[in-house]
Amino acid sequence: MTGRIDRLRARLEEPLLVTNLVNIRYLCGFDSSNAALFVEPDRARLFTDFRYIASAREAEGVEAVETRRALIHHLTELLSGRVGFETTLPYEQYQVLERGGLDLVPRSGAVEELRAVKDEAEVEALRWIAKVTDRVFERLLDVPFVGRREVDVAWDLAGLFHEEGGAAPAYELIVGSGPTGSHPHGRAGERQIEVGELVVVDAGCTIDGYSTDYTRTFATGPVDGEMKEAYAVVLSAQETALGAMRAGVAAVDVDAAARRVIDDSPFKGLFGHGLGHGLGLEVHEAPRMSPETTDVLATGNVITVEPGVYVEGRFGIRIEDDVVVTENGIENLTGFRKDLVEVG
Amino acid sequence: MTGRIDRLRARLEEPLLVTNLVNIRYLCGFDSSNAALFVEPDRARLFTDFRYIASAREAEGVEAVETRRALIHHLTELLSGRVGFETTLPYEQYQVLERGGLDLVPRSGAVEELRAVKDEAEVEALRWIAKVTDRVFERLLDVPFVGRREVDVAWDLAGLFHEEGGAAPAYELIVGSGPTGSHPHGRAGERQIEVGELVVVDAGCTIDGYSTDYTRTFATGPVDGEMKEAYAVVLSAQETALGAMRAGVAAVDVDAAARRVIDDSPFKGLFGHGLGHGLGLEVHEAPRMSPETTDVLATGNVITVEPGVYVEGRFGIRIEDDVVVTENGIENLTGFRKDLVEVG
Repeated sequence: MTGRIDRLRARLEEPLLVTNLVNIRYLCGFDSSNAALFVEPDRARLFTDFRYIASAREAEGVEAVETRRALIHHLTELLSGRVGFETTLPYEQYQVLERGGLDLVPRSGAVEELRAVKDEAEVEALRWIAKVTDRVFERLLDVPFVGRREVDVAWDLAGLFHEEGGAAPAYELIVGSGPTGSHPHGRAGERQIEVGELVVVDAGCTIDGYSTDYTRTFATGPVDGEMKEAYAVVLSAQETALGAMRAGVAAVDVDAAARRVIDDSPFKGLFGHGLGHGLGLEVHEAPRMSPETTDVLATGNVITVEPGVYVEGRFGIRIEDDVVVTENGIENLTGFRKDLVEVG
Repeated sequence: MTGRIDRLRARLEEPLLVTNLVNIRYLCGFDSSNAALFVEPDRARLFTDFRYIASAREAEGVEAVETRRALIHHLTELLSGRVGFETTLPYEQYQVLERGGLDLVPRSGAVEELRAVKDEAEVEALRWIAKVTDRVFERLLDVPFVGRREVDVAWDLAGLFHEEGGAAPAYELIVGSGPTGSHPHGRAGERQIEVGELVVVDAGCTIDGYSTDYTRTFATGPVDGEMKEAYAVVLSAQETALGAMRAGVAAVDVDAAARRVIDDSPFKGLFGHGLGHGLGLEVHEAPRMSPETTDVLATGNVITVEPGVYVEGRFGIRIEDDVVVTENGIENLTGFRKDLVEVG
């Protein structure tokens, strides 16, 4: 992570108090539940309590300072003058700093903007985690679906992540069969999976802080013509999006290109969410691809591409890859097949 | 959850905008990632976006109102006048409401104080989850420890929760062998467990939103005299604490009673954390038992009791039960044995 604090410093108008723990991990590799990083022109101080101070002393490019457990209160004694703060700070902590006499300036997104552009070490980590995820999806084809509950398949899937990568699921894994799949945020539930259904599997894993986020939709035996047609439409929308992406392109245009494919089909209006989101130390981060976004794609963005079609009460289809934006297009990290595969 | 909104209303000086999602779940049973509940004298409105509006309409005692995804921005059009807000709100959301012209009054802890006193339905749920957790700890005695990595035992433990209760772990399970156990926040790692060690197992599960939080310390074969002595001291400290608890007692006194047992032993000063914390919809909630707390125990508090001794670089011991505070003492939800058990 050499250079990350310097890159942040170059963007600051006043010293910045970084309180978002993921941002702190990004800037100096320090992972804890209680810390703040104060970046000044000539130094960066990492504040934490006795539980974490030993590992704070090993963090890169920072001076570790032990504080009381009530860290924000303690900071009012250690800092003074003009201080930028991240606006994700809870109001009650803002209040403590403000009453402590600091001259506070709200600043939002400074570190998040840096994080949106991955450096080579981050991309390399994500390539590796994607390989693990590819192997897990490959092995999932041998897991029985029919006659079992969604939660049972989700449990087997978690086991495959454990076996293949010693990895934890990156989020609550989704196994949405039939009508469950028609809700983009449907979780794995008690429903028993039947023959001739579509099953949406949305799964990723976290290794050393970085995560993947894949979705594939499987068929439990032959499915009807409408489902096949919808699958082909979603796949075409996804390929259109992948083909439209490169550095300098407005994310809203990529979303529109994918959405147009769906809206020109019998499934018009049934793609009820944004096209994708950045992926890194958080599963949802900058940039966004959606109808409302103002983000512009940049070389080094790592982003999901996940169009879908949701037919209320009947079935859902989503196909999601994780890709790196490059100057001329993309590098697709996701290697797993995306034809409509039958599972047993 | 009948009556919870009424109980909150009785404590308010002005309408309260509840934005903490756990508090919303507590008040009306609605679980989502984007919502706000506005409690006024004569009505309570539950705001959420299209993804969750159908289930919001089923929530108890509230009027569901669909908003845009940018919920806080939308609220500036729907609310006016004097509005209390929860100070856990991120500063950037406070800013949006403030610029929207609302007369904002910071209020902290109103719902959290209600949540600290469980009603009978909540205690009944916790009793049931504790029974599941008891069975899991019982079966853990048959899991092999020696020669395996901490993460492998943690994985088996997660599997037992899945089998016994269809339950997910309530937090990242801790399996801390030998020196790992000497750090109260040590996670399960790659270390291989050896014969003649102490292993701290801190584990609980979540069912329908409520969680348990148990710790037991096991021996992998015969351990030395110092370890046995330390175990006896921690057990005595825990029993002392359990005996000192009842409604009306200052939590700081219970902490002191347990701490005195340890500080009067050869392990003086090695109990480096608070005695316990409330448990419910969150694994850490009010009240607290610690050297700094000002909380007073009340009938219906559900709280962990977890003294420990940590000998840096060598071993740790912690024994943790989940108990309900009653008028005359406690009801111990944790049924699993707490003598020093040998595992294989």
